[in-house]
Amino acid sequence: MLRLSTPGFERFVQSKQFDVTFGGGEANVAASLAQLGLDAYFLSKIPKHEVGQAAVNHLRRFGVSDRFIVRGGERLGIYFLETGASQRPSKVIYDRAGSSVSGLRADEIDFDAVFEGATWFHWTGITPALGPTARETLRAALKAAREQGVTVSCDLNFRKKLWSPEEAQATMRPLMEFVDVCIANEEDTQLSLGVEAHDVDVETGSLSLEHYAEIAQALKEQYEFKAVAITLRESISASRNGWSAMMLDDRECSPAYRSSQYDIQLVDRVGGGDSFAAGLIYGLIRETDTRRALEIGVAASALKQTIPGDFNICSITEVMALVDGGGSGRIQR
Amino acid sequence: MLRLSTPGFERFVQSKQFDVTFGGGEANVAASLAQLGLDAYFLSKIPKHEVGQAAVNHLRRFGVSDRFIVRGGERLGIYFLETGASQRPSKVIYDRAGSSVSGLRADEIDFDAVFEGATWFHWTGITPALGPTARETLRAALKAAREQGVTVSCDLNFRKKLWSPEEAQATMRPLMEFVDVCIANEEDTQLSLGVEAHDVDVETGSLSLEHYAEIAQALKEQYEFKAVAITLRESISASRNGWSAMMLDDRECSPAYRSSQYDIQLVDRVGGGDSFAAGLIYGLIRETDTRRALEIGVAASALKQTIPGDFNICSITEVMALVDGGGSGRIQR
Amino acid sequence: MLRLSTPGFERFVQSKQFDVTFGGGEANVAASLAQLGLDAYFLSKIPKHEVGQAAVNHLRRFGVSDRFIVRGGERLGIYFLETGASQRPSKVIYDRAGSSVSGLRADEIDFDAVFEGATWFHWTGITPALGPTARETLRAALKAAREQGVTVSCDLNFRKKLWSPEEAQATMRPLMEFVDVCIANEEDTQLSLGVEAHDVDVETGSLSLEHYAEIAQALKEQYEFKAVAITLRESISASRNGWSAMMLDDRECSPAYRSSQYDIQLVDRVGGGDSFAAGLIYGLIRETDTRRALEIGVAASALKQTIPGDFNICSITEVMALVDGGGSGRIQR
Amino acid sequence: MLRLSTPGFERFVQSKQFDVTFGGGEANVAASLAQLGLDAYFLSKIPKHEVGQAAVNHLRRFGVSDRFIVRGGERLGIYFLETGASQRPSKVIYDRAGSSVSGLRADEIDFDAVFEGATWFHWTGITPALGPTARETLRAALKAAREQGVTVSCDLNFRKKLWSPEEAQATMRPLMEFVDVCIANEEDTQLSLGVEAHDVDVETGSLSLEHYAEIAQALKEQYEFKAVAITLRESISASRNGWSAMMLDDRECSPAYRSSQYDIQLVDRVGGGDSFAAGLIYGLIRETDTRRALEIGVAASALKQTIPGDFNICSITEVMALVDGGGSGRIQR
Amino acid sequence: MLRLSTPGFERFVQSKQFDVTFGGGEANVAASLAQLGLDAYFLSKIPKHEVGQAAVNHLRRFGVSDRFIVRGGERLGIYFLETGASQRPSKVIYDRAGSSVSGLRADEIDFDAVFEGATWFHWTGITPALGPTARETLRAALKAAREQGVTVSCDLNFRKKLWSPEEAQATMRPLMEFVDVCIANEEDTQLSLGVEAHDVDVETGSLSLEHYAEIAQALKEQYEFKAVAITLRESISASRNGWSAMMLDDRECSPAYRSSQYDIQLVDRVGGGDSFAAGLIYGLIRETDTRRALEIGVAASALKQTIPGDFNICSITEVMALVDGGGSGRIQR
Amino acid sequence: MLRLSTPGFERFVQSKQFDVTFGGGEANVAASLAQLGLDAYFLSKIPKHEVGQAAVNHLRRFGVSDRFIVRGGERLGIYFLETGASQRPSKVIYDRAGSSVSGLRADEIDFDAVFEGATWFHWTGITPALGPTARETLRAALKAAREQGVTVSCDLNFRKKLWSPEEAQATMRPLMEFVDVCIANEEDTQLSLGVEAHDVDVETGSLSLEHYAEIAQALKEQYEFKAVAITLRESISASRNGWSAMMLDDRECSPAYRSSQYDIQLVDRVGGGDSFAAGLIYGLIRETDTRRALEIGVAASALKQTIPGDFNICSITEVMALVDGGGSGRIQR
Repeated sequence: MLRLSTPGFERFVQSKQFDVTFGGGEANVAASLAQLGLDAYFLSKIPKHEVGQAAVNHLRRFGVSDRFIVRGGERLGIYFLETGASQRPSKVIYDRAGSSVSGLRADEIDFDAVFEGATWFHWTGITPALGPTARETLRAALKAAREQGVTVSCDLNFRKKLWSPEEAQATMRPLMEFVDVCIANEEDTQLSLGVEAHDVDVETGSLSLEHYAEIAQALKEQYEFKAVAITLRESISASRNGWSAMMLDDRECSPAYRSSQYDIQLVDRVGGGDSFAAGLIYGLIRETDTRRALEIGVAASALKQTIPGDFNICSITEVMALVDGGGSGRIQR
Repeated sequence: MLRLSTPGFERFVQSKQFDVTFGGGEANVAASLAQLGLDAYFLSKIPKHEVGQAAVNHLRRFGVSDRFIVRGGERLGIYFLETGASQRPSKVIYDRAGSSVSGLRADEIDFDAVFEGATWFHWTGITPALGPTARETLRAALKAAREQGVTVSCDLNFRKKLWSPEEAQATMRPLMEFVDVCIANEEDTQLSLGVEAHDVDVETGSLSLEHYAEIAQALKEQYEFKAVAITLRESISASRNGWSAMMLDDRECSPAYRSSQYDIQLVDRVGGGDSFAAGLIYGLIRETDTRRALEIGVAASALKQTIPGDFNICSITEVMALVDGGGSGRIQR
Repeated sequence: MLRLSTPGFERFVQSKQFDVTFGGGEANVAASLAQLGLDAYFLSKIPKHEVGQAAVNHLRRFGVSDRFIVRGGERLGIYFLETGASQRPSKVIYDRAGSSVSGLRADEIDFDAVFEGATWFHWTGITPALGPTARETLRAALKAAREQGVTVSCDLNFRKKLWSPEEAQATMRPLMEFVDVCIANEEDTQLSLGVEAHDVDVETGSLSLEHYAEIAQALKEQYEFKAVAITLRESISASRNGWSAMMLDDRECSPAYRSSQYDIQLVDRVGGGDSFAAGLIYGLIRETDTRRALEIGVAASALKQTIPGDFNICSITEVMALVDGGGSGRIQR
Repeated sequence: MLRLSTPGFERFVQSKQFDVTFGGGEANVAASLAQLGLDAYFLSKIPKHEVGQAAVNHLRRFGVSDRFIVRGGERLGIYFLETGASQRPSKVIYDRAGSSVSGLRADEIDFDAVFEGATWFHWTGITPALGPTARETLRAALKAAREQGVTVSCDLNFRKKLWSPEEAQATMRPLMEFVDVCIANEEDTQLSLGVEAHDVDVETGSLSLEHYAEIAQALKEQYEFKAVAITLRESISASRNGWSAMMLDDRECSPAYRSSQYDIQLVDRVGGGDSFAAGLIYGLIRETDTRRALEIGVAASALKQTIPGDFNICSITEVMALVDGGGSGRIQR
Repeated sequence: MLRLSTPGFERFVQSKQFDVTFGGGEANVAASLAQLGLDAYFLSKIPKHEVGQAAVNHLRRFGVSDRFIVRGGERLGIYFLETGASQRPSKVIYDRAGSSVSGLRADEIDFDAVFEGATWFHWTGITPALGPTARETLRAALKAAREQGVTVSCDLNFRKKLWSPEEAQATMRPLMEFVDVCIANEEDTQLSLGVEAHDVDVETGSLSLEHYAEIAQALKEQYEFKAVAITLRESISASRNGWSAMMLDDRECSPAYRSSQYDIQLVDRVGGGDSFAAGLIYGLIRETDTRRALEIGVAASALKQTIPGDFNICSITEVMALVDGGGSGRIQR
Repeated sequence: MLRLSTPGFERFVQSKQFDVTFGGGEANVAASLAQLGLDAYFLSKIPKHEVGQAAVNHLRRFGVSDRFIVRGGERLGIYFLETGASQRPSKVIYDRAGSSVSGLRADEIDFDAVFEGATWFHWTGITPALGPTARETLRAALKAAREQGVTVSCDLNFRKKLWSPEEAQATMRPLMEFVDVCIANEEDTQLSLGVEAHDVDVETGSLSLEHYAEIAQALKEQYEFKAVAITLRESISASRNGWSAMMLDDRECSPAYRSSQYDIQLVDRVGGGDSFAAGLIYGLIRETDTRRALEIGVAASALKQTIPGDFNICSITEVMALVDGGGSGRIQR
């Protein structure tokens, strides 16, 4: 998607320039993985015109291969972003009806080529919400991934502007059969899968770890996930958030493990969840201890929230320095 | 429409910021008329969200009343603009499918209120190209205008991305019955109404006045226009254009009259035609000699092309200074 | 006034560009009221040149009617602003001697037209400080407002660069007879009206509610105000302030009521008091419980301080969301 | 003066930022001389506040000594600049009533220190136009300069916003007794000294060299100038000007000599006359052939008009390269 | 190289920001070829730090493969650029002593991998000027290319800051044995190879086609080139240049053929020669008529000079439109 | 040095513009002293080209005399800066090998002129780390200073990119004989002089005053310093630091005195140590109580860290206001 954001803390009606970048759930994960040092491919459909080309170039610039990007369709999805501060929340206005990717058909993709030698396939709950064509294409991709023995992760990522909880659940539940690693935030499990988060006030962000452990347990059993990871954001204000995550699996994160917590002065919180997913995927591929994988996910996404734009432009060295205790922010000369 | 343009002479794939302004045919005419000192109203439909509000605010800022703007619908049309230079042409990418105005229904407008006391109604060929709903609403507006005795002008404004010449002609021809003043550029008469411009090379812009006089004559007779005005752009390069116009009517512009010619160092040529229409309308309302009305249109639009953005931010004093010979650009202290 | 501020946290001597916007006490209140959804008019005098026109356009853009703005005089008042951070305070340099509004005469205004159908008239202590002409014009306006039964509010707004406490008190005290709602900050009551605030250290901002309740009581009795509202700023640093207000009236704010307190990460604190006045006025017009009116004032002005520029560009929906508990700053998609 | 200009080709009512620099006749000459390699001092009065300090710093940055700048008074003069293009002229709005320099008294200056060892004193017709105090201070300076045997040049620089031709002539004529080198543009001689330029159309800039030679002759005789230099600007448009000068003296420029002519694509024409004066002064001090001095003045000022801001930031090496034929603009690596 | 350029027409001493991009002879050719649609690889050495990474990302963004870029060494070469206007020339300050690429050794490159399946190898005269290590590495590359039967082109590109004509000739002459296509500008043949260009005034750019044809003939015979192409720049001013080229080969350009001539309003002339080389290479690979190959080179480089930055961001469609007569710069909607 | 920093919180690989300023240890101290009101000179070598000139102009602008700056050599040292936030540290990339100053020879300086009438000479540990030439020149300067009875201060300023602790100690220890006032941060004493700081975790910044007092005592005795001052930074995050200092001397700071502590919201922490040195030097020259001198140093450097750029642009009035309790950041109108 094309992201158009107001500079500084300007409101939409004040701006004479929009900062231009590109992002969106899966693209953000791919870019983040590429920054961490893995080979990353982005599977999507993008219009042929120059604004579409700019999106492709942006992915290439940050190391994502454009090999499997289909070019065509009418338009690039757009979202407008206004960054909040203190008591004033950030705002997102979506303008993505009719985007090229919503019309991407399965027959436009060579799944054999896509999954040959692939290790991991990641998708988010936004894709099936884009419409029936996207939904079918996704289902075909998931089947192909399964056949190739590729590990699949899904970030539930419920978006209320795209569909209702009822629609989401009807679509998402059957797709969970293809998922190995389920990633969610505080609200997603309830909205996308109907697993309720009792007694949680997501507005104030007072968090009950026990509660989320129960939800993770329920999800894991119901859908036979290998792992369930939930990000935990404490919204102190639009300028400052607490940030951590928990994970439940059958390995080091059993019982459920809660990561380190970060007190973040926010620069740009968009893409926080995606960078968490990327860090976690990296960790699950490269680390032996899944608790450390979770810590990588949380540290990576804490750093992301200090970087402008959707992408997490952090090397694995930088992430590891934070995991290993370097949160003091001392200047590096 | 939201206009997003690359700064300076950057190409789309280079930009990290887009300049933000708002424009579009009829809005540009309304804003230009307000700058010239007339009361101007803009009739359209704009979404309720903050980007839509920014469009409304932009109109208010430049003196256009928002009294008849309907708020609602899904999205604001967008166009992307890259400014060319020398041998490199400017480029426009439209992204306006599904815009709110394309769904504006006649029953959402109180035509009695709109036309009560109104002097003039201006529309462009873009509106009926937006789809059947816009077309019907336009037809209703034209009928109401006629009933109230309001003078109507139309800028043919053919857009090949919106429809084919055949579609355009099928729609536009019947609408001409409501038009008093027909405004066109070199190509429009052929594409929108099928009146051919023989022997004209619009690419190089070598212009034959006699030829356009014939076309104007044909148009005037066929549709019983009170006046036909045609802008004449000589495209020397993307940095420099010749600019003039001709008009045929039953008054001072009979026989056809060609205006002064301006050699323009282009700053922003978008909106040139709209500012011509506005200047001409102003002149036809306020001046007694229609040749002077034409000169006002041409001078106003020459100035527009030195101003960034779609709107012609020029006072009538400034336009008159140019009409009366002040093209030397001497600094005014 | 034309406001010229250094970008980011630059000092005056560093800047190569100034951010340009327009503001000033009463203009800020008018714009804020228009954003909240009320009809707002600004009564002033602004020079005819283009910089003056830009000021008028800015007001129109944000919904303020320019119907009663007189055009003429020599210059637009200017203020230069440097935004501080942490231990470094923000700085304002005024350059408004000889501004057009200081020469606005009563005979230039049609008070009948101004107050016909009006509900509320707001002024600040800056206006009479601009000189004898402004003072007399204000007095004439207040008389006319009273005759029309318009409610009047005054923000005392003492400015030491414009006059001494002695001059202020000699002028302001007699004008209080026309005031229904008196608005002040911690220092204003002492400086503008001579009602002392014992034992308060405004530098550090340690606040004694009892103390301000006493002052409000004294003011209310002496001048027979319907309500006295005092904003309470705790200056922790140039980056962070505590913010609340108290009000005393004969309704729900009797005894004195202190609002919710906000811990604000400041983006732009200029105009905080004006947005409070506007929020309070809105609340007193639209709400039945005056405590809620005060909460609207405080919430509106908390939001203002997160927005660049003098104007509080917030909808009533946004303010109400904060009043009703939405201070967590969660992103709104 | 503080110069606030709109970026690019924006009109005043469009700008959200103003470019900030500092300039003004005598300051521009001083800065230009410093860039050319001479010791230069600026004699003025500037307020103590930080915006005043920024002006002082700007002069220091470009090599002008602040040793004789008096600090005090109320305000720094301001001018607003909008850069035109093609048929649209540049515009200047002055806001300098009550500036500190207009109140500079002779007793605030130690003329002995100022002129000790000085070679040249330059003033412009703007200074005496600022009011009686500035006029008297100037007269005192001129007397002191004469007593010290310092050469004096004057750029007549008539400004119609400051005074009428009648006022100007009454003041300027007596001051000519102190002037050795008189510098003027096409209009100044008539407006400031009443020496008429018959048959010249300054708007279109068609120039008659003979005519200007006559004027120079008349001036030289009447006021016993050692040299009279007149700049000749042909205003083709706001984007392109012809530029040259002529001079009459008793040396190599007798009979009157016309310089090379430059066809300039304008970047910023403000300060063109000042940079001419500086180049000429430099040439008269350093060169033996006064025709070469004139060529230096014209070349320096041609270069100035390609540089943003009031100051001519050109080394003498660069000026000489142009004088000696390097006008092809080939890149220098 | 890191390119740091002043914004707009600012001089070095005025700028508070530098525009950042990346470029340099061979990189520019690679990027241009990638934009035209060919697979392009860049062979160089770039430091590991983040500024080096930004250079790599820039290449990837514009489609150049980073597969053969060696990472290491101390620093990235830098050049500072100031864009001239009218009579004021552009200026380049080089700061590339000790750059990583100057220390790139042949043993750091796997030439088999580099040239496997390669069609063309392009180098410029800047590389051997960087020092003995770069020279040897280049020689090794040329040998490997020859062995693989890869066509080799060389842009002579003499840089007087790097070496003297004598040094250049001593180094370049022996390297010509490996070259198939020799590309030069007006001065290069004399400075790099000692083939004199009699009677040509490169400053004013008056060009004698016959003369260049003779030089090309001499070069072709002496070094047995398959083709010799010479760009012909007429420096009218820093804002406007004439631009064309001539070529001599044994095919359609025998006798020597001169291309179309373009009158260019310059936006950014840096990289003009590189984009010519790329266009010519593209043409020689894809076209059957070598005159058309030359026209592609000239048209591509004419377009480049209207685009900011070193890279020629033009599609082959755009170049062909210009070759086929579309130089009128008409807006493309 | 030329400082190139990414705007806002951008990472190096994101930026399209770099903010340009100039700085470096000794230059920062000189500029800060000039801002505080003392006469300051900078002794260095800077290349003759325009980027070098921009550095000189920057110093002049902020009041530093360029009288003793030698012009010549090949290049200006550069450093790239990326400003961190929250858990993400700021990063500096140095590019200063071969800078002009590293080749400054003693015979290029007239030490008699430099130290005639001088009060104080300040140097940092960076200078001798630049190479043998710089080291010898420094030693010559120190000898000359001693002969003239000038007080000498040294900021140890260890830079691990320039040399190892062993190299540093071998060079720095003998130079301490010329030093009166030794300034250091938490790490410098160990790295530059080998006086170990036991048990201190500089990462988290938990500080033990007793410990630093012991180090200061050891240093003072070993090198017979008149005073030892150590800055104490608590790195809470890249956005927020605690800041204070301690000093030991034979006057009011005996026993060791710890200054007030500031909780700083960082804007730009680079140059913090230099501004401390400048404030301390100012205080030691102008104040009678050395504790107050230390407080001036700490307050000055607290303010610096809220100002963009290397230089501390603060007047002594502003510093004193903070020393005397004005840390609340209340707006100053």
